[in-house]
Amino acid sequence: MTDIHDLTRRLQRSNDSKIILCVSDGLGGLPLTPGGQTELETAQTPNMDQLAQRGVTGMSIPVLPGIAPGSGPGHLGLFGYDPLQFEIGRGVLEALGIDFDLGPDDVAIRGNFCTIDGEGLITDRRAGRIASEIGKKLCEKLDAIEIPGVEVFVRHVKEYRLVIVFRGKGLGGHINDTDPQRTGVPPLEPQGRDEASSRTADICREFLTQAQTILQDDAPANLLTMRGIAKRPPIPTFEEVYGTRAAAIAVYPMYRGLARLVGMDVLDAGATLADQMTCLEENWNSYDFFFVHFKYTDSTGEDGNFSGKVEKIEDLDAAVPRMTALNPEVLMITGDHSTPAKMRAHSGHPVPTLLVAEQCRFDGSTSFGESVCRVGELGQFEAKYLMLQALAHAGRLDKYGA
Amino acid sequence: MTDIHDLTRRLQRSNDSKIILCVSDGLGGLPLTPGGQTELETAQTPNMDQLAQRGVTGMSIPVLPGIAPGSGPGHLGLFGYDPLQFEIGRGVLEALGIDFDLGPDDVAIRGNFCTIDGEGLITDRRAGRIASEIGKKLCEKLDAIEIPGVEVFVRHVKEYRLVIVFRGKGLGGHINDTDPQRTGVPPLEPQGRDEASSRTADICREFLTQAQTILQDDAPANLLTMRGIAKRPPIPTFEEVYGTRAAAIAVYPMYRGLARLVGMDVLDAGATLADQMTCLEENWNSYDFFFVHFKYTDSTGEDGNFSGKVEKIEDLDAAVPRMTALNPEVLMITGDHSTPAKMRAHSGHPVPTLLVAEQCRFDGSTSFGESVCRVGELGQFEAKYLMLQALAHAGRLDKYGA
Repeated sequence: MTDIHDLTRRLQRSNDSKIILCVSDGLGGLPLTPGGQTELETAQTPNMDQLAQRGVTGMSIPVLPGIAPGSGPGHLGLFGYDPLQFEIGRGVLEALGIDFDLGPDDVAIRGNFCTIDGEGLITDRRAGRIASEIGKKLCEKLDAIEIPGVEVFVRHVKEYRLVIVFRGKGLGGHINDTDPQRTGVPPLEPQGRDEASSRTADICREFLTQAQTILQDDAPANLLTMRGIAKRPPIPTFEEVYGTRAAAIAVYPMYRGLARLVGMDVLDAGATLADQMTCLEENWNSYDFFFVHFKYTDSTGEDGNFSGKVEKIEDLDAAVPRMTALNPEVLMITGDHSTPAKMRAHSGHPVPTLLVAEQCRFDGSTSFGESVCRVGELGQFEAKYLMLQALAHAGRLDKYGA
Repeated sequence: MTDIHDLTRRLQRSNDSKIILCVSDGLGGLPLTPGGQTELETAQTPNMDQLAQRGVTGMSIPVLPGIAPGSGPGHLGLFGYDPLQFEIGRGVLEALGIDFDLGPDDVAIRGNFCTIDGEGLITDRRAGRIASEIGKKLCEKLDAIEIPGVEVFVRHVKEYRLVIVFRGKGLGGHINDTDPQRTGVPPLEPQGRDEASSRTADICREFLTQAQTILQDDAPANLLTMRGIAKRPPIPTFEEVYGTRAAAIAVYPMYRGLARLVGMDVLDAGATLADQMTCLEENWNSYDFFFVHFKYTDSTGEDGNFSGKVEKIEDLDAAVPRMTALNPEVLMITGDHSTPAKMRAHSGHPVPTLLVAEQCRFDGSTSFGESVCRVGELGQFEAKYLMLQALAHAGRLDKYGA
């Protein structure tokens, strides 16, 4: 069976076109009351409305109907990678999220500081949610651990959370979590499910033994558990599968890491949307494909802040003219998932999507919002197919078969 | 995972119903200006509009979103065969396109006459685009080539293009092209990727050696290259998977060949739509399923002739009453892909589709056009599922499971 990328590898055609994928994180929403308007429909978005009139709209299904994705699968889908095929382990995502430059042979682990009693039983799985300053210092101590045959990196994330990375040849990531998910029991023993992972499990045990000695006087954080032990999945690059030189303009480490994972160059922009637009303009001639990430529609949604999310959508709308002024052959605005303020969480609702290009089939969309997108020309589609539409509308795909 | 045909084999139920699948090649279009109407929407189509009011509409995705198919995958999809699973090699399509009756064991090759210099380097990959009369004569000379163990057929296509077929037992079609895709180098050696293909590559070499002797005084066409070396894919027949006796009424060889590939009887009709309708009427009692192919909506689209395509659509509309007069249980009108005059090429836009049957769920469609089909009852669906709808609406499918 030919998969998406077998197809794009075979059909890719190069030209001078430019494609912008603007991801407004958690864009999709819900009305607060039946019959009401969503965040996107409530927002005043004259620029995006005009784009909807010039282009086509539709609804993106991030993974499968009803499934709410995390940031990882949400973005992989938009990048054209089947999120059910390419799974990213928790440890890897955590490492990407702190901008750790993870190599293809590295094993990444999410760590949680915990408290054990005199008999080695866990009494607090989060070590009393220690302050970040304390967590940071403990990580610096653990970073001194040396294990023959591998490099060891220990990095602090936040409060009781940390990342451990083992770098070396022949490591494996198929190892169970040591967090038993309850108190009153000892941590689980790490066990590898194949030969490389067994060797790596030995390294985990050695690390935990040394850590226990180092942390013995640091109660409540006198040990740690390990979760989501994983290697980077082998992912073909954007350049290889689509033939595009791709750049990411994202502020938050997680999204920069996800972009790096698929082989995008990660550009350095300032923290504001205006900075991101400046970065886009300055790098316009150096790339074919630009991933622009806007975080705040998700964070306001997570906070349950309906009007805050509306404002952030309006901020994004105000930045649109700087993107259209560059005359990209294809401009897409969508989200990696919905984050309705009403739910204060990622949801499985489909995501409003907009695509503007010369060869669009006009679909009568009058504005950009869920009700309009529901009947747009792009239909309801799985997110992983959006890149096909982008490449097709940019003239970057040959005909399939004769 | 149960595939479509595993399902239809299990569920097929026979009855006296008649199904017509009318394929207007390249039917889907684009407005010339944003907000305008497509070719189909511009055309006056009172008969198809009435059908839309009696039936249901939708949008067919030929392969995957955005992917523009050639005629082969476009039609296989409509016939209910996954076009990504059943791939048809270039040589096979070329042989079908000249009405060559290809057997299941035959290896078909697309040949290009070329020019080589005294050192055997290619100086022109198309032999100066020799006239068809010359190409035809050279093919007759090559048709005399004899190779022990196989029958050899050489047929002219057009100008510098030809088809070579080897017929024999145990041949293989996994052989590289000998066309190096550039000049100044010799043709590539044919190499087989498995045992049967290696034997067949030997036959290719023997053919090319003899051809070089025969053509030595025929510059600029003093050799040929081979491309798309392939066997017919094993394809289950319409009768086996759907339980229908199927007939094709198509004028152009390519479409007759595609119909033959899935086991349809290919009927002989005159060249006009009226002739095709007469053929349909005359054979009405002999078959359950009729594939009627109308070419000219594609060719006018390829020519960039918007108003010409509109006229051809109106011609098709005028033929509709002869189809409805036969009272088929299911009548479908669709295209194998879009060929917008604006693009002068096959495109990946979804294709307007109409299905009329007694058990249709009325969807309020008022006419047959892209804007209406976008919100019709059939939704946006992959073309390979249309046959399921046809069989279901013809009462030819049992319930799945108890």
